[in-house]
Amino acid sequence: MNVKNIKAFGTEAADAALAPLNIDRRVVTLKDVEINILYCGVCHSDLHFARNDWGFSVYPVVPGHEIVGKVTEVGKGVTKFKVGQLVAVGCLVDSCRTCNNCKNDLEQYCPEWVGTYGGQDKHLGTHTFGGYSESIVVDEDFVLNIPENLDLAGIAPILCAGITTWSPLRHWNVRKGSKVAVVGLGGLGHMAIKLANALGAEVTLFSRSPNKTKDAVDLGANQVVISTDDKQMAGVQNYFDVIIDTVPYTHDLNPYVATLNTNGTLVLVGYLGPLDAMLNSVPMIMGRKAVAGSLIGGIAETQELLDFCGKHNITSEIEIINIQDINTAYERMLKSDVHYRFVIDMASLKS
Amino acid sequence: MNVKNIKAFGTEAADAALAPLNIDRRVVTLKDVEINILYCGVCHSDLHFARNDWGFSVYPVVPGHEIVGKVTEVGKGVTKFKVGQLVAVGCLVDSCRTCNNCKNDLEQYCPEWVGTYGGQDKHLGTHTFGGYSESIVVDEDFVLNIPENLDLAGIAPILCAGITTWSPLRHWNVRKGSKVAVVGLGGLGHMAIKLANALGAEVTLFSRSPNKTKDAVDLGANQVVISTDDKQMAGVQNYFDVIIDTVPYTHDLNPYVATLNTNGTLVLVGYLGPLDAMLNSVPMIMGRKAVAGSLIGGIAETQELLDFCGKHNITSEIEIINIQDINTAYERMLKSDVHYRFVIDMASLKS
Repeated sequence: MNVKNIKAFGTEAADAALAPLNIDRRVVTLKDVEINILYCGVCHSDLHFARNDWGFSVYPVVPGHEIVGKVTEVGKGVTKFKVGQLVAVGCLVDSCRTCNNCKNDLEQYCPEWVGTYGGQDKHLGTHTFGGYSESIVVDEDFVLNIPENLDLAGIAPILCAGITTWSPLRHWNVRKGSKVAVVGLGGLGHMAIKLANALGAEVTLFSRSPNKTKDAVDLGANQVVISTDDKQMAGVQNYFDVIIDTVPYTHDLNPYVATLNTNGTLVLVGYLGPLDAMLNSVPMIMGRKAVAGSLIGGIAETQELLDFCGKHNITSEIEIINIQDINTAYERMLKSDVHYRFVIDMASLKS
Repeated sequence: MNVKNIKAFGTEAADAALAPLNIDRRVVTLKDVEINILYCGVCHSDLHFARNDWGFSVYPVVPGHEIVGKVTEVGKGVTKFKVGQLVAVGCLVDSCRTCNNCKNDLEQYCPEWVGTYGGQDKHLGTHTFGGYSESIVVDEDFVLNIPENLDLAGIAPILCAGITTWSPLRHWNVRKGSKVAVVGLGGLGHMAIKLANALGAEVTLFSRSPNKTKDAVDLGANQVVISTDDKQMAGVQNYFDVIIDTVPYTHDLNPYVATLNTNGTLVLVGYLGPLDAMLNSVPMIMGRKAVAGSLIGGIAETQELLDFCGKHNITSEIEIINIQDINTAYERMLKSDVHYRFVIDMASLKS
């Protein structure tokens, strides 16, 4: 199969810094769209994958799944996109398309979904490379339209941080008057606040530090509850319909479960692994409360979100960096020193 | 306030055997129904409460919240019941009636619900006494109609074991074609199998011992999966829509969560306390799976269940005992030596 050799930024090993490298992209097939990448958001998963934190990375790793770019070529069978159009690509670039999950627009739960990086390129037989690169070739069914009224760089994080919080807000039926709490104010948390607010919910941020109050309110939160303050926690017992928990490490869920109202659900979106604090079934049974997980979102749901963001003028709060700054950005991300998402200006790759 | 002194069976202390004692019942007030108790089921909670396992028992304890009997007197304001009618009383005899849960027919989640025993009798100011007694006086709004076609003694366990499994089956929308698994084959588990089967679901029992297979199939299960057999467990990965977990002690939920399909929920109904095995968020996030709890059911839902049981000719599998055998029955219950519920013939109280 014909390939195109292009510039990218990635790593050859778990303990190596990210650096320039070249990768092969397939040339467009019948249903493919080739996209010149303009901006790419920096997700925590990028770092986990580059450093093999989950144990299944395949090298070289080229991270990046919050991609905004311009169509430069389309396959002969492509009907939805044309050259010159601005588009986006998120965490998925393919799936089996035949299982029940795929049929129900839940491609993210397809057992054979293909990640934008580290997945299996069905055409080339090699693994996929993400958005820290000049261009990407994606089946048109996994390419998204973007609203024309929004800042291009600010759109990028919607593709992962946005959809990861939007999907549970929608699945658990958040609407006008819903009481939503968000745990953690990072890339995911700040999008959760914006989106829940735009859906008409009353939004609370749980935070350990009072110094996030102003930012949270500016983003759309109605109040901040300091999770280490027993009195404040007592004031929100049995209160929330949905809690979006974006904390990226293991933590005790029991204090948050206690703040769920009858039929409420706490949704884990940030931490993958065993929860080291014992979950107590008493409040769960006594209030029909649930603890659940949720993973990004399907393609149709991601398009729904992009359209919603266009309508409500929502983008991510970002700090634009050059690709050469990515290793520093990772270190800052580990210290939560970002408000609230790094986005790479991919023009820097050419310099 | 006028009271009637009646015979009962209960205990004065956590470490004392149950024995005959006398208690005061209020005389019927405006909206009260007095019921001569014919049968009373024996629930694990009866034993927990008699022995103060949960630490909040008040003595003397007269257990019993699976009550079937005949109306002997009604207050002047009673409109739903008349003398001579066969009726039932379950786990609740009152609630605040004004909170959102009460307004939504979820009295079991009302913060002020009054338990049939160990609750607070609003009229007398004393604590409530359960169904191991001659008679009970209950506000008509907490009295239930029973179908005429069913065995009276076999109805009793529907009031707790039945509704405890019915409520989650209904809340999580089990219907024709749903794939339901039940963990544990005891009083709750055997009702869960019968009810899920009658709702049209495909029903699987998870069991640790193959010798329960025939019974489970007779009760309505389509298959039994031996939970300690890795091969059998592998065959049901990502399969079930709802799991009703009736196990009454802490256990590792992870093997069961793995068998939930996308959007599936494992519902804890049997164990109150901290789960000592770490819950792993990975499969929950990767399949939008949930772990939830559920407590008995509301009054309207319990009536719905009784009507459903009448229509589908469902009763509990029981072993009838005399009240004098209750201490032995508790010991047998602790060894799971009952198929599947003890019911006390309350005529024995007079002997």
